[in-house]
This record gives sequence, C-alpha cells and structure tokens, in this order.
Amino acid sequence: MNIKENIKTLIIDKPLKLDCGKSINNYPLAYETYGSLNKNKDNAILVFHALTGDQFVTGINPMTKKDGWWTYAVGPNKSIDTNKYFVICANVIGGCMGSYGPSHKNPETGKIYGTDFPVITINDMVNAQVNLLNHFKIEKLFSVVGGSMGGMQVLQFVSNYPDKTRTAVPIACTSSHSAQNIALNELGRQAITADHNWSEGKYLAKNTLPNKGLAVARMAAHITYLSKKGLQEKFGRKLQERDNLNFGFDADFQIESYLRYQGSVFVDRFDANSYLYITRAMDYFDLIKQFNGNLSNAFKNTKVKFFVISFTSDWLYPTQENKDIVIALNAIGADVGFVEIESDKGHDSFLLNVPDFLNTLKNFLDKSYMEKI
Amino acid sequence: MNIKENIKTLIIDKPLKLDCGKSINNYPLAYETYGSLNKNKDNAILVFHALTGDQFVTGINPMTKKDGWWTYAVGPNKSIDTNKYFVICANVIGGCMGSYGPSHKNPETGKIYGTDFPVITINDMVNAQVNLLNHFKIEKLFSVVGGSMGGMQVLQFVSNYPDKTRTAVPIACTSSHSAQNIALNELGRQAITADHNWSEGKYLAKNTLPNKGLAVARMAAHITYLSKKGLQEKFGRKLQERDNLNFGFDADFQIESYLRYQGSVFVDRFDANSYLYITRAMDYFDLIKQFNGNLSNAFKNTKVKFFVISFTSDWLYPTQENKDIVIALNAIGADVGFVEIESDKGHDSFLLNVPDFLNTLKNFLDKSYMEKI
Repeated sequence: MNIKENIKTLIIDKPLKLDCGKSINNYPLAYETYGSLNKNKDNAILVFHALTGDQFVTGINPMTKKDGWWTYAVGPNKSIDTNKYFVICANVIGGCMGSYGPSHKNPETGKIYGTDFPVITINDMVNAQVNLLNHFKIEKLFSVVGGSMGGMQVLQFVSNYPDKTRTAVPIACTSSHSAQNIALNELGRQAITADHNWSEGKYLAKNTLPNKGLAVARMAAHITYLSKKGLQEKFGRKLQERDNLNFGFDADFQIESYLRYQGSVFVDRFDANSYLYITRAMDYFDLIKQFNGNLSNAFKNTKVKFFVISFTSDWLYPTQENKDIVIALNAIGADVGFVEIESDKGHDSFLLNVPDFLNTLKNFLDKSYMEKI
Repeated sequence: MNIKENIKTLIIDKPLKLDCGKSINNYPLAYETYGSLNKNKDNAILVFHALTGDQFVTGINPMTKKDGWWTYAVGPNKSIDTNKYFVICANVIGGCMGSYGPSHKNPETGKIYGTDFPVITINDMVNAQVNLLNHFKIEKLFSVVGGSMGGMQVLQFVSNYPDKTRTAVPIACTSSHSAQNIALNELGRQAITADHNWSEGKYLAKNTLPNKGLAVARMAAHITYLSKKGLQEKFGRKLQERDNLNFGFDADFQIESYLRYQGSVFVDRFDANSYLYITRAMDYFDLIKQFNGNLSNAFKNTKVKFFVISFTSDWLYPTQENKDIVIALNAIGADVGFVEIESDKGHDSFLLNVPDFLNTLKNFLDKSYMEKI
C-alpha cells in the first residue's frame, strides 16, 4: 500500500520504549482530524479505531473512495458532533494506513520490515498516540471513544493517562482478550501464513501478495462480527442470482457470495502483515494482568467519567465482559454509566445504523460537555 | 488416503439416482459393525457419522490408531450397548474412508474424480446406506442415531423410510442448515481452495496435498465445536510452555498450540475434496424446503418413536433448531421426547464424556427396546 499524499503524517521524534523491550524513534503516525479545536482547547475527542479501521473516520476515505468506518456516528450533528467537537483519529502503529508498521523500511537495513517489525501492544499504540496531544497543544481531551480494539485503547489510555481526558467511552470491548477471541485471531493468522505468497512475511520484496489467505482471514472475522439471528434474517438460505441449487462449488447462496465479496474488497485496502501484528496486539491485551489481577487498580483515583456500551447480540465481546469493566469501576466508586443496547446486528452494531446506540452516545457526550465534566 | 485391507466394503450394484440428476452404480460403501445381529434381526441400530467422522465408531480406529469417534457412547454396557445391539455405521458417500468419493477414480475416464465427482446430498447419503439393510437382511432397524450431520441423516432416513426403523434419535442437529452454518462451511471451503497445492482439486494426480488450507478449515470448524465458556475454562489465557509472552508469532497461548495441533493431525486422516463435498451436502440440507415449507409433512403418519437431544452451550445447532423438529413432530401427534442437556462443552458435547447425555441416550434406547417399541 503506497503512502499517498492525502495521508497526514506526524513524525514522532520522541523515543518510545515498546513492551517488547525494543525502542522506536522518529516514526510516522498518520492521523486525520474533523471539526475545529476551540480556543480553550477543551473540545477534543480522540477516537480509536478497531482492527481493520484507520484514521479516516467519516466522510469519504480518500484511499478506498468509500465512506469512513464511523460515518454513522461522526459528523455534523451526529453522535460525535463535528460542529461541536474536534475529532482526532490516528492509524495505530503496526497498521498500514501511514503509521509505522511492518510494510515500512527498517532504517537499519534499508529493507522492508515484514515480520522483523517489533511486536506491538495496545499499550504501545496509545503511548504513540498520546503524542498527538502535544502536537495540538491539548492538555486535556474532552473524551476518548472507541469500539472493539478501539475500546481496549480507551481503557489503556485512561489507565496510562488518567489526567488527560475528562470522559471515556469504551464500546463493545473487553479488559482481557478471551480464549475464543485469541483462537479466532489465530485462525486469521494461520490463514495468512498458509498462503503460498506470504513468503515468511517478505511478500512485498518479492512483489507478491498473500491475498487469498488474507481474504480467508477476513471472511472468518466477518462471520464473527454478525449474529446468528442477524445472518439468518438478512441472508437465510436465499440463493444468489439463481432459482435452484447448482450442485457445484460456486456461490449458490447469497451468504457465500457476500463473504467472498467481503474478502475480495478487504485485500485491496489492508496489509497481511499488519493483520498479523494488530491481532497479536489484541490477543496480548490483558489489563487485568497488567494490574496483578485487579482491574479496579487500572483506574485507581480516576476522575474520568466513564460510559460503557455493549450490544445484546455481540458474541465476540459479550455484555458480560463489558459489565466486568463496569463492576471494576463501581468497586472504586468511579463515575460510570452503562447500557446494553438491543440489536440483532452483532459486534458490528457499533459501526452500523443502530439509532438507540447512536442516540445514547450523543446524549452522553453532549450532556457531559454541557455540564463541563 | 489408501484403502487398506482393514476397511470392509460393500459394492452396491443397484443404481442410485442422485439429487444432482446423475446416477451412480457399482459403487463402494465402507462400513463397520459392532455387536451381533440377533435371530429375529430386530436389534440393529444404524449410526450416522458427522462431517469428519467415519465408520470406525468405537474401539481403536485401525487407520488412525486412536479411539473411534463415539467410544464414549458405543460399546459393551455403554449408551449404545453392543452386548445388546448390532451397530452398523457406514462412511458416507463423498467421504474418504473407503466409500465412493472424490478421491476415487472415475470409471469413465480412469482419472481420479477430484471435483468432477457429483455433488451429493444428505438424501443421497441415506439412500446409499439403506442398502446395508438388504445386505444384512434386516427388515426394520431398532433405531437410527446420529449427532450433527449424523442427526440430519437420521431425519432424512425416517422421512424417506418411515417403516424401516422403530425409533430415531437426532442429536444436536437441524432440519435446515442456517446462514451462519453455511457461512462457516464456506469459510472452510475457501481455506482449502486458497491453498496453492489444491490445484483445482487435482492435487492427488500432482502428488501434492493442500494440507495448509485443510488445517485452517479444521481450526475454523474446531472453534465452532466448543463454547466460549468451555474455551475460557479449559484454556483461558494460559501460556504454552513459557512464563512470559514471547513477542512473536509462535504459539504463545495454549489455545493457539491446541488449534495448530488439531489442524496438523486432521490432515493425516482426511481428504480435502471430501471436506468440500460433505460440507456442501450439509449446506444443501433443508428438509423444510423438501416438504414445501412444512416440516411436519416430512414425518406424516410416522409410527417411529423419536427422541431429540440438544445441548445448552451448542451455538452451532442451538436448542431452538432442535426444538423446531420437536414442534413439527408434536404438530402431527408423533411420539417424541426431547431433552436439552446442560453442558459447557458446546456442539462437541455429543462426542464427549457428558454423563447426563450418555445416560439419557442409554435409557431411551434400553427402555424402548424392552417395551418392544
């Protein structure tokens, strides 16, 4: 993936010691902003993206020419109202939309990193992104918001920098990646590394791409983003442009055709090695272990106002795992709201047009902002 | 996979018209038996295997040298008591343990079929297996029993041959394959066909095997056989033979190591093209559509005594889909029992040591047998 000129990049010239022990310096962080920072610099919201997201939150993504990943939630008069707030979003390190990652060159060897890129963590991701606050001379954000892996970054950010935000909204996430979710991520990694073209991660140097494996990984993940009921209602056993079964291995069913399409468009915008690195970061995320088995300690003495949101049909990050965060916050008397939104759209609910969710998010933010929390 | 001498094979010399329109004749059906057929020939149970099962139900499988797939349930004094019953199980057509399938030669061309083998259905599978009754001169079975795809065969068998069995036990199955399950099967097929060595299905002629793709398909399926809770309790975030994260892409977590192992042993015993064919048969299964939208009509005037079993943590064939069968049977006043067994072991529960399940199955069979039902 080429870094095009419409990607804004900040070069971070402050060394970052990574969890793996290695340090990085003078590395690029690609970001985007929406809305305007006010004079008091107290209206900024840092949005964190999920596994396959990027900095292009809303409007047309200049790389894919499609809507940004959170167009339903972010924009003028929307849940995260860009008439009111200054929204910042950065591509995570390890990613492939301009931030430092495995498709970059190793300055020491002049060769593309591939799997020689250091393994990064959710902690590393937020420690890189906090530099954006200095860049914009923001002392304190109004909020940090994110769903899925974005929610993990919210939790890690508040834990690392309790004084750098007034509010926090972790959505459809967890404080510790479950065995099932590690298994599902490992499945995606195995699909990629099984691809003949993956070439031990050195595919860019060989001018090939492990697109078949990456597409399989995407299909696997996509199934997990939707609920059984949602899939049944949307696709059921409907056939794809035919009246009868074809007795072959073409896509007889609409759901097959849909999955194949999802796989094929994904490979045009995502890097296979980044998929390995980012899923690894998710699997390594265990805020409970970081605080020796007591999640409450991650937020000790916090003054941040939290709002946790889950979805009924999300089986990847189910309500119980979101509630565990609420319980840990309540245990230390933190200011925390929680809502489980009724939706058949599965984990993907936070990305879709789910009015109850969008209204809830808007009301929490606008009310908190008005009350000068 | 070579057909070894310890595989018993019956050559079916009666033409079978397949659902796809093609006919097969003089084709092999590999089978195994356990226990003895009594003089009245009224103690026979036909067991149907699931996607990756075979005819070696119990004892040591001579091909894998491991326990048969249903050793917990079938054997002397077990749920399906081989001191009492004569158990027959055949490898499904399309399979790879001796029955006619894609790794066989096409008699017309002399070449290995590969994907030229006709696409088969659950209906075709049971229509092939009913020939075993003639072979053993059994007029009426005591029971037909099977879990997962085996349960689908139970339903199809009773629908096709209502006078050929006295009882029927469909376990952890469905009357119509759901969109999510089609999606998961399609994922497996895509993983196989993405393998560079699959070679459009002609890998045997090229002396290669698409083992990486087949292993990925198995890993994907294996995750779906277990429940989130079961995975969390068994594996959680336990590390594999190490004290700390390794910051790499080796199997840091036990669950990763376990999945890789499951993939690697599977490819030694299963054929990739058979995986395509059998998953296709499952996806095509829709007994509701076969009877124009009314499942009850599949069992009209049946005298068979049914017992339907589901498991609480089975999200692949959840209780509701099993209950739909019970509802359809009750709607026509059929004799049907139903139980949902409490288990954290997911869909795999029917294969594992789940005493409530094993006792339930034993009691239903033994009581029905004693009552001469």
